[in-house]
Amino acid sequence: MRNIKLTIEYDGTHFHGWQIQDLKQRTVQGEIKKSLKKVFKKDITLYGSGRTDSGVHAIHQVANFKIESYLDHTEILRAINASLPEDISILKAEEANENFHAQFDAKNKTYCYSILNRPARSAMHRDYSYYFPVKLNLKAMRQEAKALVGKKDFKSFRATPPANTKEKNTIRTIKSVTIKKRGDFVLVEIMANGFLHKMVRNIVGTLIAIGAGHKRSGHIREILRAKNRSFAGKTAHPKGLCLVKVNY
Amino acid sequence: MRNIKLTIEYDGTHFHGWQIQDLKQRTVQGEIKKSLKKVFKKDITLYGSGRTDSGVHAIHQVANFKIESYLDHTEILRAINASLPEDISILKAEEANENFHAQFDAKNKTYCYSILNRPARSAMHRDYSYYFPVKLNLKAMRQEAKALVGKKDFKSFRATPPANTKEKNTIRTIKSVTIKKRGDFVLVEIMANGFLHKMVRNIVGTLIAIGAGHKRSGHIREILRAKNRSFAGKTAHPKGLCLVKVNY
Repeated sequence: MRNIKLTIEYDGTHFHGWQIQDLKQRTVQGEIKKSLKKVFKKDITLYGSGRTDSGVHAIHQVANFKIESYLDHTEILRAINASLPEDISILKAEEANENFHAQFDAKNKTYCYSILNRPARSAMHRDYSYYFPVKLNLKAMRQEAKALVGKKDFKSFRATPPANTKEKNTIRTIKSVTIKKRGDFVLVEIMANGFLHKMVRNIVGTLIAIGAGHKRSGHIREILRAKNRSFAGKTAHPKGLCLVKVNY
Repeated sequence: MRNIKLTIEYDGTHFHGWQIQDLKQRTVQGEIKKSLKKVFKKDITLYGSGRTDSGVHAIHQVANFKIESYLDHTEILRAINASLPEDISILKAEEANENFHAQFDAKNKTYCYSILNRPARSAMHRDYSYYFPVKLNLKAMRQEAKALVGKKDFKSFRATPPANTKEKNTIRTIKSVTIKKRGDFVLVEIMANGFLHKMVRNIVGTLIAIGAGHKRSGHIREILRAKNRSFAGKTAHPKGLCLVKVNY
């Protein structure tokens, strides 16, 4: 059996996230599976690197599936893309090692959260950024973000996980948090070996509260120590979030 | 009477362009007029800097209107935005000189055309860029673009104008053509004292043909000399086009 690795971009606006749950809901995994069925005329199991929530985007999600086929990987790419809706695009299809598994082999993931930080909302970026009109103090945000880096228990930043996931271990390693200014946007980029449920959005909600001056220095240390979700900030809106890289 | 100048952003995807024509069609000018009527309880004439076609975007369109009101310009901004659909955003409302006219006083306009130049189409940018998979030769495009700069007769780059416009003079002055590479995007930015109907899109279609190697050096000079639309390239898709600046 060949093992095909896919690199996938999607606009999460009109999806109930990555993962197939209820078959009546439109999901990215569900649409790709439908496309694979059209191309290969059978049901194929598709393994994603992990789920993304409803409304969250990706410019580099990774998935894999096993297949016997006379099509080469370029033909597979074209065939899948041809039958996918326009809000999903397969960027790359390549032959992977037979043992490669998109979820279990993922070493690091990077998410980018996009905050539009100006007085007026945006028409063009309305589905791809979170509009926050109060001027953010980036220096304060960067200073606080340092406390997030390293191997830590991020329980305070975890939402109640969905009933069908088992997520007992709440220790993760954040490799870096980078906060950049790009025109009117503030981009928060976080790389970790894994993320708890809604962890990025809970971190960003907390960083926004710090940037807006609602929380003082040392706040993130206190949250981490508390190991209690109620200490952290609001969950930032999903539309500002994008999965930008999965490293293997 | 006060004269209010508006700076406007819009996502052109779901509009039949800027200008009100048939009242059954959704236009940017029509939506703003509806909003002005809600705010000021009467019909108000709104002058735009010029029309944009169906599907074309703007991050800096300018318009003005006359009003007597007790609201200051910040309150006007908030009130209009509150009743506008989310694909239009007023970025700024300011008091202008009583003689200011958004169309007649415009000195220069800048448009940016966004070409996604990579093997795979994009899900996230599908409505904001034109996907062209063949690798473009930017050096050739830049070299040819030089022939466009200056005061010239651009008749060859003009589409048949709509029946209700009078556009006899086809001489315009292009101040600059800049072709930039930004990641997988090629951005063609053109500044001129005015543009003929579909002129930017016809120029971009021609530049793409040059970049793809379908036309040889000297092609733009020949087109300009011919003064005949049939000599220029295809009209590039509207979704890649964005009005980025109007100078007064």
